[in-house]
Amino acid sequence: MDNTKAILVVPGTMEIKPARVPMPNEDEVLIKVEYVGICGSDVHGFESGPFIPPSDPNQEIGLGHECSGTVVGLGAKVKKFKIGDRVNIEPGVPCGKCRFCLEGKYNICPDVDFMATQPNYRGALTNYLTHPESFTYKLPDNMSMMEGALVEPAAVGMHAAAKAEVTPGKKIVILGAGCIGLMTLQACKTMGATEIVVVDVLEKRLELAKKLGAMEVINGIEEDTVARCKEVLGSLGADIVFETAGSQVTARQTPLLVMRGGKIMIVGTIPGETPIDFLKINREVVIQTVFRYANDYPTTIQAISKGGFDVKSMVTHIYNYKDVQKAFEESVNCKKDIIKSVIKMKK
Amino acid sequence: MDNTKAILVVPGTMEIKPARVPMPNEDEVLIKVEYVGICGSDVHGFESGPFIPPSDPNQEIGLGHECSGTVVGLGAKVKKFKIGDRVNIEPGVPCGKCRFCLEGKYNICPDVDFMATQPNYRGALTNYLTHPESFTYKLPDNMSMMEGALVEPAAVGMHAAAKAEVTPGKKIVILGAGCIGLMTLQACKTMGATEIVVVDVLEKRLELAKKLGAMEVINGIEEDTVARCKEVLGSLGADIVFETAGSQVTARQTPLLVMRGGKIMIVGTIPGETPIDFLKINREVVIQTVFRYANDYPTTIQAISKGGFDVKSMVTHIYNYKDVQKAFEESVNCKKDIIKSVIKMKK
Amino acid sequence: MDNTKAILVVPGTMEIKPARVPMPNEDEVLIKVEYVGICGSDVHGFESGPFIPPSDPNQEIGLGHECSGTVVGLGAKVKKFKIGDRVNIEPGVPCGKCRFCLEGKYNICPDVDFMATQPNYRGALTNYLTHPESFTYKLPDNMSMMEGALVEPAAVGMHAAAKAEVTPGKKIVILGAGCIGLMTLQACKTMGATEIVVVDVLEKRLELAKKLGAMEVINGIEEDTVARCKEVLGSLGADIVFETAGSQVTARQTPLLVMRGGKIMIVGTIPGETPIDFLKINREVVIQTVFRYANDYPTTIQAISKGGFDVKSMVTHIYNYKDVQKAFEESVNCKKDIIKSVIKMKK
Amino acid sequence: MDNTKAILVVPGTMEIKPARVPMPNEDEVLIKVEYVGICGSDVHGFESGPFIPPSDPNQEIGLGHECSGTVVGLGAKVKKFKIGDRVNIEPGVPCGKCRFCLEGKYNICPDVDFMATQPNYRGALTNYLTHPESFTYKLPDNMSMMEGALVEPAAVGMHAAAKAEVTPGKKIVILGAGCIGLMTLQACKTMGATEIVVVDVLEKRLELAKKLGAMEVINGIEEDTVARCKEVLGSLGADIVFETAGSQVTARQTPLLVMRGGKIMIVGTIPGETPIDFLKINREVVIQTVFRYANDYPTTIQAISKGGFDVKSMVTHIYNYKDVQKAFEESVNCKKDIIKSVIKMKK
Repeated sequence: MDNTKAILVVPGTMEIKPARVPMPNEDEVLIKVEYVGICGSDVHGFESGPFIPPSDPNQEIGLGHECSGTVVGLGAKVKKFKIGDRVNIEPGVPCGKCRFCLEGKYNICPDVDFMATQPNYRGALTNYLTHPESFTYKLPDNMSMMEGALVEPAAVGMHAAAKAEVTPGKKIVILGAGCIGLMTLQACKTMGATEIVVVDVLEKRLELAKKLGAMEVINGIEEDTVARCKEVLGSLGADIVFETAGSQVTARQTPLLVMRGGKIMIVGTIPGETPIDFLKINREVVIQTVFRYANDYPTTIQAISKGGFDVKSMVTHIYNYKDVQKAFEESVNCKKDIIKSVIKMKK
Repeated sequence: MDNTKAILVVPGTMEIKPARVPMPNEDEVLIKVEYVGICGSDVHGFESGPFIPPSDPNQEIGLGHECSGTVVGLGAKVKKFKIGDRVNIEPGVPCGKCRFCLEGKYNICPDVDFMATQPNYRGALTNYLTHPESFTYKLPDNMSMMEGALVEPAAVGMHAAAKAEVTPGKKIVILGAGCIGLMTLQACKTMGATEIVVVDVLEKRLELAKKLGAMEVINGIEEDTVARCKEVLGSLGADIVFETAGSQVTARQTPLLVMRGGKIMIVGTIPGETPIDFLKINREVVIQTVFRYANDYPTTIQAISKGGFDVKSMVTHIYNYKDVQKAFEESVNCKKDIIKSVIKMKK
Repeated sequence: MDNTKAILVVPGTMEIKPARVPMPNEDEVLIKVEYVGICGSDVHGFESGPFIPPSDPNQEIGLGHECSGTVVGLGAKVKKFKIGDRVNIEPGVPCGKCRFCLEGKYNICPDVDFMATQPNYRGALTNYLTHPESFTYKLPDNMSMMEGALVEPAAVGMHAAAKAEVTPGKKIVILGAGCIGLMTLQACKTMGATEIVVVDVLEKRLELAKKLGAMEVINGIEEDTVARCKEVLGSLGADIVFETAGSQVTARQTPLLVMRGGKIMIVGTIPGETPIDFLKINREVVIQTVFRYANDYPTTIQAISKGGFDVKSMVTHIYNYKDVQKAFEESVNCKKDIIKSVIKMKK
Repeated sequence: MDNTKAILVVPGTMEIKPARVPMPNEDEVLIKVEYVGICGSDVHGFESGPFIPPSDPNQEIGLGHECSGTVVGLGAKVKKFKIGDRVNIEPGVPCGKCRFCLEGKYNICPDVDFMATQPNYRGALTNYLTHPESFTYKLPDNMSMMEGALVEPAAVGMHAAAKAEVTPGKKIVILGAGCIGLMTLQACKTMGATEIVVVDVLEKRLELAKKLGAMEVINGIEEDTVARCKEVLGSLGADIVFETAGSQVTARQTPLLVMRGGKIMIVGTIPGETPIDFLKINREVVIQTVFRYANDYPTTIQAISKGGFDVKSMVTHIYNYKDVQKAFEESVNCKKDIIKSVIKMKK
């Protein structure tokens, strides 16, 4: 068994380097990686380096954290898996001991070891990696390896919808129809919502939103988003507004879209300071930031496997591992055409 | 406009009598009734008289509370409706002033005026009735009048599933595949659950459960319910067990089926004292009785109209109003073959 | 029985005018008013006229909504009260029919009739007023009439703390030690919190906060609020931050004070647009606006009567009804010295 | 350093035997035990042997799980503690990996290693023990070692009250005024409840309940519990009924005491099958079993240290370690006079 890993040698340049096959410790499995999805945070890292740069200048920087593969090795105490199992992984491994972990909110553990960031900067773009059994999940027979790699962004949508307590009958606006916006759309549909309006500025994305079940789509450049949403959902506004575009423009629209007693879910990464007029939302509105996921993988896997949650349609670009540099370059240059890129690891 | 109403003259005998067309007060609408569903409680009332007999021996006893119709008159302050609107009604009108009403739990209002029971014993089996605007609902264009009459039992299922906090990924057992069990099944599916096992003793009902989306059905006479449920759902058991059969036999099974940390929802009307061994469920299990519905009609109507919640398939028997006596007699005598009977009001 | 009412003739000028004694309708009681508290919103109305001016230029504008008194008349259907009962009132009467009312969130009813605002602009500064039985509350024997008038602002604090889900062990910062800040402090203490830091810029208020049970008080001018809070509560910050000062300065501090997974409660009326950097609070923080109260009066009355919630200490100024103009003028001019002014109605 | 441990050689006989001082692993602290409380489950174990007997007949059976002590050794990775820290411990160490642990419900972890039971049967009645850092807690300066040992049963009360969502204004009945009933009483008071009725059959316990803040106490032999509770709390009944007596008699009373929409909390260990008439509680009543505690220690420690939660008054008997046999014998023979026994470990 030979191993390699794709390393960010300088911002803008990935290189595939030889690496040792890691040894699983007693609670870990060894996984042969098959598919890795490229996330917006990976693209940002590719362009600019890690959000939190390593203290050690010699630290190797990996990228990728959405992945699936096959179990090829087992730690001594592993019980849930056997060699050959098709799996995917939850890329953040929390400390398990802090207050947040003990309360079940392990996604906000301050000491989480999340792939491609500090402290370990290990990336999923490698042939072999080890991972703790308890954050590894068996894929159902009817789920492909590529779908397995897409469970991670789907889980972001499921988590956002679960935190928003989406139920049948809720009126929903989703701002942004990129990968996370469309995952959130499907999560909302899985939880029984039907009155869902999706807003974006790219027609291609809106078409996909429509195909994936949006009741109505709005082009935010061509139409007045607030006026149109109220036309569609009623003048009180939406029970829940998801900001997934990560933009000041959309973030500032949220108070105008939400109903009294409603919820604004901040899913996107919004740069800078967003001016919020609290008098506009002073009738018991909640603004909530959502972060990654916790306890959402089993649910998400089931929703994809049995519940009609479609992740395949999101994939617009597939690359071979050897073309990893090109994959990232196109992600930077052709953002508008890409919903989701995945990388197929070579055998 | 002539009116009649079907009155229970003695237990076992219904008679259609002439009646005055009621006048809506300022907050009410006048409705020409089109379809009335027959509920198990109606059948019980037909056989035995009302649960709580009227204090006045001359009180006329009506039956029926699941109904749809057309708005034909409007009180002075009514705003939501116009003549000709197709509607259905929520048959319980709460006091609006007690602690429970003010807290939004109007289904447990001690002073609720619920159709066919005290204090007014007014039944839906009549040509014209008045009802408060705020407990009347417009039917979507794609919903038939017959479906409108079935929103009431569907709302029981939606309420039960909502109280149980059904979400995608939950493992569920439903004991009983009568009307309420099947409504609960669909409510669970609407909320995203896929791993649902339905148990009954009649093959016809199990076939319908399967058709309506049960992952697995179990014949409780031919198979060992507990053993089979654990085989299907895993040895920990179910997150949620719904008792909808209203039987001691099934109620006693619930502690054996539920997972640690899980919920037992008592939806059926269980006679007598059920022996519960709390040591068998001492790991933070909840047993919860659920009663009717509150704030569930809009959601239920939407689920039927847009969410794939199928009420039509439940209807096994349709009668004309003039055959109301026969309708009730068959409900008594042929319980096994009936899932849901509805009565089409003449004219 | 003669009646008068204090009317805002032009902004800045109140006048006591003769008035008819109102007749209670069947669901109402007639109350002889004894104490009326002056709220910041009353002072704002006195200075600038109503937030939402009446459409009819001849509409009389009353002020005051915090009041207690004695029942002197009963509508035909009133059951809970008898002549002579000492009571206070909840000044907002919701419609009882909209979605929000039916869900138990009557504080956000769009059609609420709240004293001293549209549509009726009736004020509590009058000798006799009528009010619905279901929003009138009997005072316990050990509660004075003056305390009765203070239940309203106390209920604001109780509602804020209840929405924040304050429980023992929570670390809390309260920004602002005016009347609502101090009410919130006591509400938090009633719910079992002990680690409560109160921030203000006036020493007198901080002394009162200390007396009422704050673990620590911080003078926001003399000390670095954020640094000191973290010193006292730990570097992670507070579970809950209440903004009660209604200022941009304090609102902007909230993201720096709150813990990951924590809550920011916007209780004060914050003018303008507050810049919020969502990246600073991206670990599942909730910002929630709170508005008045719903179902909080019984709890608040009990907390004052039996639970050690001290409203008396808040009263710094007492005026006679005839000096109502002076009372409002001093409220405008001496804001710094006043925590709470109350008006004793004559006779 | 010499060590000993008290071992149950046969049911009814404890023996103090020499033992090795255990070595803390990297995540553990070594604790010199000072106080150990005796729990009802310890007394049961003393009389009858462990609930789940060990598979290995040579397994030594320890007793005791409520304890405090001093840190005298530190594993390599321990950060929170230093030598000399005064601490107490949470006696159940969950697996940290199962679904329940990851969801924050570690008290229902199927693989928990809880003191004095399987798999390890290690007891707190020993001079030195090791324990994981994350389930060890520092005692505040104002808390005595004896109080530290009583945090465990106090946490049971805090957990029960937290699961019941006790808030100010709730009407509460507590059946049983033994150690856990009185802890629950104080937890309810800490959370702001004031209308609390306590029922027992022993006057001494009722006196203590009164002293600890019960609004009313009822002797269940001399008075009609149900009638008296409704007299005190109103005819609707209680919002929350805690069964802490662990008896069929009291368990059967709970449906008669609870209000529509209310909660019955099963805290005691109720033997056999309890007949429950669901028709008596069919208006959305919840019956919930509560088990131990999760994330309750920090809160409980704070409530005792700062919130007026009095555990000292519960201690009726103190024994020296060498008299451990006598301590258990008296626990068996004089149950009526004992609220709480503690054992002081010799130096």
